[in-house]
Amino acid sequence: MSRGELEVLAILFGDQASGLSLLKLKFEERRESKTPSCKMRRHRCVIDTESSESGSDSDSDTAMRCISCREEYVPRDAGTCKECYVEAGETEEELKREIDDLKAKISFLRLSSSLDHGSNSKSFTDVVLIASDNAAASPPIPAHKAVLVSRSPVFKAMLENEMEESRSGTIKITDVSYDTLRTFVYYLYTAEACLDEQMACDLLVMSEKYQVKHLKSYCEKFLVTKLNLDNSLMTYAFAHQHNAKHVLDAALSQITENMDKVTKREEYIELVEKDPRLIVEIYEAYLSKQVNTAAGRTSTSKTG
Amino acid sequence: MSRGELEVLAILFGDQASGLSLLKLKFEERRESKTPSCKMRRHRCVIDTESSESGSDSDSDTAMRCISCREEYVPRDAGTCKECYVEAGETEEELKREIDDLKAKISFLRLSSSLDHGSNSKSFTDVVLIASDNAAASPPIPAHKAVLVSRSPVFKAMLENEMEESRSGTIKITDVSYDTLRTFVYYLYTAEACLDEQMACDLLVMSEKYQVKHLKSYCEKFLVTKLNLDNSLMTYAFAHQHNAKHVLDAALSQITENMDKVTKREEYIELVEKDPRLIVEIYEAYLSKQVNTAAGRTSTSKTG
Repeated sequence: MSRGELEVLAILFGDQASGLSLLKLKFEERRESKTPSCKMRRHRCVIDTESSESGSDSDSDTAMRCISCREEYVPRDAGTCKECYVEAGETEEELKREIDDLKAKISFLRLSSSLDHGSNSKSFTDVVLIASDNAAASPPIPAHKAVLVSRSPVFKAMLENEMEESRSGTIKITDVSYDTLRTFVYYLYTAEACLDEQMACDLLVMSEKYQVKHLKSYCEKFLVTKLNLDNSLMTYAFAHQHNAKHVLDAALSQITENMDKVTKREEYIELVEKDPRLIVEIYEAYLSKQVNTAAGRTSTSKTG
Repeated sequence: MSRGELEVLAILFGDQASGLSLLKLKFEERRESKTPSCKMRRHRCVIDTESSESGSDSDSDTAMRCISCREEYVPRDAGTCKECYVEAGETEEELKREIDDLKAKISFLRLSSSLDHGSNSKSFTDVVLIASDNAAASPPIPAHKAVLVSRSPVFKAMLENEMEESRSGTIKITDVSYDTLRTFVYYLYTAEACLDEQMACDLLVMSEKYQVKHLKSYCEKFLVTKLNLDNSLMTYAFAHQHNAKHVLDAALSQITENMDKVTKREEYIELVEKDPRLIVEIYEAYLSKQVNTAAGRTSTSKTG
């Protein structure tokens, strides 16, 4: 948005304009980064055909400028009035303030784990986690029972009862790599993890085993963003095995939209051999989708 | 917003309307709860004088309905176009999703303190806090060194070095009530506190002493909301003593806006006796405000 346009806004709105300029700049950025949508093209077309550039600047009765994007629009494309627009801007500012407050709270609530820094400072840990039986290969990860107990019902049962782990102060987790365990523990302290697809899968398995719901949901979200035609079948099978509903739904939808391609893939043939029940579920979902689409089409043609 | 209006929106926007209905309802509520602003009255006046109720419903070239509040407006009151309005709604939905995510993270990161429940479960505490020398009067509050150290640089220094508290595992805090200490410790675990004015002051003092910035800022915000003419001078003196800048600024502004009333109050006379330096600062702020107002008036009359 140009300085001139901001000045027009300032005249229209007085002080409120300055509070809203961020919002407007965001609109501009999004508008530029987006491929013009159908509606957008129509909108532009209106301006072109009526060539309302001439009688532009304000009090014209037939065309007016949007006070956000500064493009002209005609009455039949009516938007919101000024008041509602200003209120929407205020609501946005309020929400952003709330976000800042919540972020500050999160940074207050994070605990520094012993992994945070090769720190000299004492951290009063009372338990260690070890990733394999071979202690030399993977150094023990010190932690606090209070934190483990607070984050996972499984650790809670393990540590609050007189089990081996509680007595010895050592929790051995043999089916996981040192890196995964380290990332897992770090997440328990900070609610943060640096993921790639492999790590997300490994952590999802761990979070399921130790019932750390927040981490499981974090990994699920990550895996959904990484879904594509190449990994959809493997991801689907993985999600099935580990009861990851969001990933399952997303993968299933990806698969059923590309059935012809998917059924030609090697993984498909392997899965038919290995776990045909999963393939049956895919076909059931595909069929149900087709029925729904057909029903939709019929009702449209009746009303239309 | 009526069902009919929502239906009109649905026709205009298709599916997008449903995602936006919440936003629109919020507009409605805010609109109803607010005393009509000056601009609002002008806006309504335009409708009255032009009595555009007649040619109302849509394709009129001279008046149109705001798609948020459904009131009519004329071109010279132009607002945002549909696209920008829809984008604003989408931004709001995004922000709300972010807020939900942050809240989930906070609830994950909260630790259950030993105060949470008269719980039978072990909490692996390794330190106790005592509110007075008379242990009988105030039961010890169990806590975790790791939490205290993580939240307060003062506790960190105290517990990480070989000081009395570190050796004995007991931290005695004699200048504070049991209730305040309990609330303080609870906040360190949860970032939550139930405040009244007295508790906010007590906790602000504690949070300053133990350098728990997040709690101090929380108390400051609470005290600012409780400011009024009756408590402004006392709050100002308190904020001065404890270096609470936000409270100080708010109180000073409250005072200088009501100088004639404030200087007649008993607290004013007491403060002149007790700490005249504070009163001098008030007068300095008052004078500076008057100078600024006068300067503003001069420049307006020159340009106007």
